[in-house]
Amino acid sequence: MEQRAVVLLSGGLDSVTVLAYARAQGYVCHTLSFDYGQRHQVELRAAERLAKNYGAITHRVMQMNMAAIGGSALTDQTIALPISGVEDSIPVTYVPARNTIFLSYALGLAEVLEAQTIFVGVNAVDYSGYPDCRPEYIAAFEKMANLATKTAIEGQLIKIETPLIHLSKAQIIQMGIALGVDYAQTVSCYQADEQGRACGVCDSCRLRKQGFAQAGLADPTRYRE
Amino acid sequence: MEQRAVVLLSGGLDSVTVLAYARAQGYVCHTLSFDYGQRHQVELRAAERLAKNYGAITHRVMQMNMAAIGGSALTDQTIALPISGVEDSIPVTYVPARNTIFLSYALGLAEVLEAQTIFVGVNAVDYSGYPDCRPEYIAAFEKMANLATKTAIEGQLIKIETPLIHLSKAQIIQMGIALGVDYAQTVSCYQADEQGRACGVCDSCRLRKQGFAQAGLADPTRYRE
Repeated sequence: MEQRAVVLLSGGLDSVTVLAYARAQGYVCHTLSFDYGQRHQVELRAAERLAKNYGAITHRVMQMNMAAIGGSALTDQTIALPISGVEDSIPVTYVPARNTIFLSYALGLAEVLEAQTIFVGVNAVDYSGYPDCRPEYIAAFEKMANLATKTAIEGQLIKIETPLIHLSKAQIIQMGIALGVDYAQTVSCYQADEQGRACGVCDSCRLRKQGFAQAGLADPTRYRE
Repeated sequence: MEQRAVVLLSGGLDSVTVLAYARAQGYVCHTLSFDYGQRHQVELRAAERLAKNYGAITHRVMQMNMAAIGGSALTDQTIALPISGVEDSIPVTYVPARNTIFLSYALGLAEVLEAQTIFVGVNAVDYSGYPDCRPEYIAAFEKMANLATKTAIEGQLIKIETPLIHLSKAQIIQMGIALGVDYAQTVSCYQADEQGRACGVCDSCRLRKQGFAQAGLADPTRYRE
C-alpha cells in the first residue's frame, strides 16, 4: 500500500532535509506551509520551490492571522528581533503554541488525505529553547491526535515522525547533503531581504552558519554584504 | 489574583452558555472566534454581539482558510449538507481536527494573556458523533498543552474546562436560562440566512429544536418560514 505523509515545510534548512528524508524512505509526500504574518515571507516562496524540487505531490499554504494573538518578535513588529547572539533562555522569537497549531493543521490534512504519518523537522538545537520541540511534547501530541480524529477511532493511527530531533545543526546538514539537498535554495534568516539574502546576525543565521562550520562544509547561504 | 480565561465562542447556543457560566464563576473572559470558511458566516456577527452582551473583556476572530484542507460539508461547497435528520455515525459536517486547531489557538492566546483556563463548549450531544468532543480527548489535549508552552514549563499549568460535556441540549438550555442567557441572540443553523434566520432542518437546527422541546421551554429561534 502507498505510504502517504504530510510534511511540514517552512522553506528553511531543517524541513527540506525532512522532506528529502521522507521521500528517500518511500513516502508519497504532501507539504504544508504557513503564512502566519512572519517577518520572513520570502521563506514561503522558498517553500513552494523546495516542495516542487524535492518531489512533493501537492503543496498547500495555510493562511492565518497569528498577529491577532501576538506575543512574538516573529509576528509582532513592535518586538525587536535579537541580533547580538543566541541566548540560553526561551527567545522572543518563540511563537506561542506555534508547533501545536501547525501540527493540528497537519493532523486535519492527514485525515483528509488518509495519510498515516506526519513529518516535522523539530530538532535538538531548537528544543534547548522551545518547549514544543521536545520529544515528550511530540509524544503527547501524538497521543492526543489518536483520540482526536475519525480515522484514528476507526483504527487507522497516526504517527508523528521527527527524524532530526536528536541531531545537531551540523548533523542535519550532513544528512541533507547525503540526500542531495542543495541548501542554497533554502532561507533560514528571520529578516531575509526580497531576494532571499540573509542578514547573518539573527539567531537563525548564527545557528545555520555555525552548523556549516561544524560540519566542515562550505556555507552556500547568500548574505546581504 | 484575577482569574483570567480564554473562551471559545462560536455564536451558537452552547458556547454562549459557557461564556455566561465562566463569567458567573468570576473569570475575566477573553473570547475567541474562528472565520474558517464555514457556511454560516452570520454566526460570526452573532459571536461578536454575544461577546459584548455577556461581558467578555476582549473578542478576537482568527481567520484561516480551512477550505485548503477540505473534507467537510461546512467548508467544502461541493459536499451537500444533510437536511433529512441526525444520523448515528460521524456526520459530513465534521471538520477534520477542528477542535484541535481551535484549542491550539486558544492555548497560544492563553499563553500571551497569561490565562490559566480555557473554556470550550463541547458536549454530550456532540460527542456521540465527533471524536474530538469526548472527555478522553480533552484530557489528552490538556496533557499535551502542559508540555507545549513556555508558561507551563515555568510551572503555570493550563486547565481545559468543559462545563457542558455531560449535559444534554435540554440541560444546557436550562443552565443558560438560569444564567440569564437570551438564546434569541444565538445562531445555531448551518445555513442561516443573512438576517440570522434558521432553516429548521439541518442537524444543528434539529438538535436545538429538540433541546427546547425537551426542556419544556419556548423556542425563541427565528425561522425562515
